Amino acid sequence: MTAPLRIGVAGLGTVGAGVLRILQTHGPLIAARAGRSIEVVAVSARDRSRDRGVPLEAYAWESDPVALARHPDIDVIVELMGGHEGAAKDALEAAIASGKDVVTANKALLAHHGQALALAAEEAGRVIRFEAAVAGGIPVIKALTEGMAGNQMTRVMGVMNGTCNYILTRMESAGLPYEEVFEEARQLGYLEADPRLDVDGIDAGHKLSLLASIAFGTQVDFDHVDLEGIGSITIEDIRRAADMGFRIKLLGVAQMTGRGLEQRMQPCLVPATSPLGQLQGGTNMVVLEGDAVGQIVLRGPGAGAGPTASAVLSDLVDIARGNRLPTFGQPAMTLTRARPAQAAVPAPYYLRLQLVDKPGALAKVARVLGDSGISIDRMRQYGHEDGTAPVLIVTHKTTRIALDEAMAAFPATAVVAGDPVALRIEAV
Amino acid sequence: MTAPLRIGVAGLGTVGAGVLRILQTHGPLIAARAGRSIEVVAVSARDRSRDRGVPLEAYAWESDPVALARHPDIDVIVELMGGHEGAAKDALEAAIASGKDVVTANKALLAHHGQALALAAEEAGRVIRFEAAVAGGIPVIKALTEGMAGNQMTRVMGVMNGTCNYILTRMESAGLPYEEVFEEARQLGYLEADPRLDVDGIDAGHKLSLLASIAFGTQVDFDHVDLEGIGSITIEDIRRAADMGFRIKLLGVAQMTGRGLEQRMQPCLVPATSPLGQLQGGTNMVVLEGDAVGQIVLRGPGAGAGPTASAVLSDLVDIARGNRLPTFGQPAMTLTRARPAQAAVPAPYYLRLQLVDKPGALAKVARVLGDSGISIDRMRQYGHEDGTAPVLIVTHKTTRIALDEAMAAFPATAVVAGDPVALRIEAV
Repeated sequence: MTAPLRIGVAGLGTVGAGVLRILQTHGPLIAARAGRSIEVVAVSARDRSRDRGVPLEAYAWESDPVALARHPDIDVIVELMGGHEGAAKDALEAAIASGKDVVTANKALLAHHGQALALAAEEAGRVIRFEAAVAGGIPVIKALTEGMAGNQMTRVMGVMNGTCNYILTRMESAGLPYEEVFEEARQLGYLEADPRLDVDGIDAGHKLSLLASIAFGTQVDFDHVDLEGIGSITIEDIRRAADMGFRIKLLGVAQMTGRGLEQRMQPCLVPATSPLGQLQGGTNMVVLEGDAVGQIVLRGPGAGAGPTASAVLSDLVDIARGNRLPTFGQPAMTLTRARPAQAAVPAPYYLRLQLVDKPGALAKVARVLGDSGISIDRMRQYGHEDGTAPVLIVTHKTTRIALDEAMAAFPATAVVAGDPVALRIEAV
Repeated sequence: MTAPLRIGVAGLGTVGAGVLRILQTHGPLIAARAGRSIEVVAVSARDRSRDRGVPLEAYAWESDPVALARHPDIDVIVELMGGHEGAAKDALEAAIASGKDVVTANKALLAHHGQALALAAEEAGRVIRFEAAVAGGIPVIKALTEGMAGNQMTRVMGVMNGTCNYILTRMESAGLPYEEVFEEARQLGYLEADPRLDVDGIDAGHKLSLLASIAFGTQVDFDHVDLEGIGSITIEDIRRAADMGFRIKLLGVAQMTGRGLEQRMQPCLVPATSPLGQLQGGTNMVVLEGDAVGQIVLRGPGAGAGPTASAVLSDLVDIARGNRLPTFGQPAMTLTRARPAQAAVPAPYYLRLQLVDKPGALAKVARVLGDSGISIDRMRQYGHEDGTAPVLIVTHKTTRIALDEAMAAFPATAVVAGDPVALRIEAV
């Protein structure tokens, strides 16, 4: 095991440069830990002339990532290009076909093609590692795949898009509307080139689908992640939720139910005093629940050059040490196709509606809820403005189906103005 | 890799029974993840007749753990007996000498003999794994040794004795004095047979010394952990600290300084709103800080059959998968002997003293502090009772040496009654 591990890095954005920087500054430290040195043989990126703040002279340059992936003197390809089709996918497939291990930060690619890639890698006797793809610097893939390997997992959840959490906490702390904070985030460079990846929950949904696969031994199934973004969250709901002791988070939850695998990525209310409720700004948090261990909470930076490079290095050191395991923790051919379940797990809900100022209005709303089998845990009515009054309701546990039925019946009462807001309250 | 991994379990207390229960109920799940089944061949404990709630008929019984360790049909010895001398040590040494890997939850043994045991194991080509020895079910050894392998670690810290955290939070929530809550904890069975292991910080100090070794590539050096227990913490200090926005935690901190390795296990003040400050009851929390990743916080159950068994299973699945690495993350012969540093890292301090009701009293105290180079960040004086008044002082950063100098000079002022209390405020 004294031969160096030879790597090629495809993609030299901030993370790629971060990986090179760590290898350049911590070479002896990493060699001591890995039992061998990790040597960069070649790199690849679109623009050769750009200054990336790290010297590149020592590395061969491949303008084509697929050529890099086929380079004969490389053991591991580190793929940091991103994108779920095109060059990244081609490079990964070429790397596996030419007998290389793969380390990637590409959640989109794995969410869409993880099963096929894992099968190909395992057939070729190669590994695909992706610690950097989920929750940045937090070693959550390792914690789940290895640290909790003795557990039947019961639920995994997390706040895994720092930009959304930044927007929501900033709306609360500055009292600003969504649109304004969204614009701020754009100017700060926090948003993806296509911001829907962030605010529609797609990026976080990719991550959730990867965690669900490992946790439940199922094939990645991003298509059945129930996605709901944060675009409709108002400063009013953030404040009203706070009045009731909650914070609103874009929370991903995956759990195996009697009816199948439920995967949700949606704005939820969580108790303001809980670890998830306390999470501010761009920090990520993942909660792993298993039958033996109970609840493990991991918190850390979800993005950025240093944290993401740290996760890439964790995978590289593992490969250098000879720690090899199937992509999703068990052989891809043994992963089952889970039946997708939607809205299977009941929960309490937060409801906000504008009640018209008429006698008996509240009773009518309560009756509609009761007719759908929904009972009320707590209710708060505020003063009237312009002929309507905000009413907040926290229900007892109910299903989304029952709730939608009740909401569909509100208009007929003629006492509910506008569209009511309904948000799930997740027990954390 | 289709041959089963054959194990022997030495020690059948709650954790040992928990390990057997997981293997009995999750056999196929674990085999799918590990790539092979994990089979218990033999067990060993003091009392064969005791009912442990799990069937034992399928396993050979060895009354002598050393005989178990030498059993020819066993690949891994799981040592759950505890104690840093005697049977546990003998069994581990015998296991290594007879070519077996070792999984242990024994922090005391590793804190005292970790370096010698690691050397012996590595010479024999065997591994010692101890995820269960630190912070129960939290996969912190894995996160540090593997997940952060690309980082120069800057600081590791944690609340790693659930009993002490239970006592401190219960004192605050119920307003009860230490002695009463200590007695409660004893009756609840939370305390070790020798409670000094808990309340004097010895158990948590063992754990800290293991984390420090991995983090800084140094030989375990428990003898130089600066230990201070919670026995002198009063309900008054808990309340006064809360007035200033802090909570008191038995916090272990290890960091490499210009003067050497500093390891402290002592009651500290942390901001009440920080993750450490929010930690209630018996839960553990470990904070890992590295130069690339920044800060990672891990939270979970620090004790109990299920969580501890979960950690043992993590080690067993690693060994079954062929994931082998040196005990402390790099070969034991490459670990350096760190120069021990005490009180090298300056910090703000919380000071509480009883001021005699005399003109100019406060000025005299302030002058004594100033003479030792200590400046005051915040101060609060309460009303006089019985001729003295409590004064709380939060200093700017200073060293423990300067503070001790000032405290030694207080008596000469004749305005400070009794012994002042000084507690470090750790930046978290």
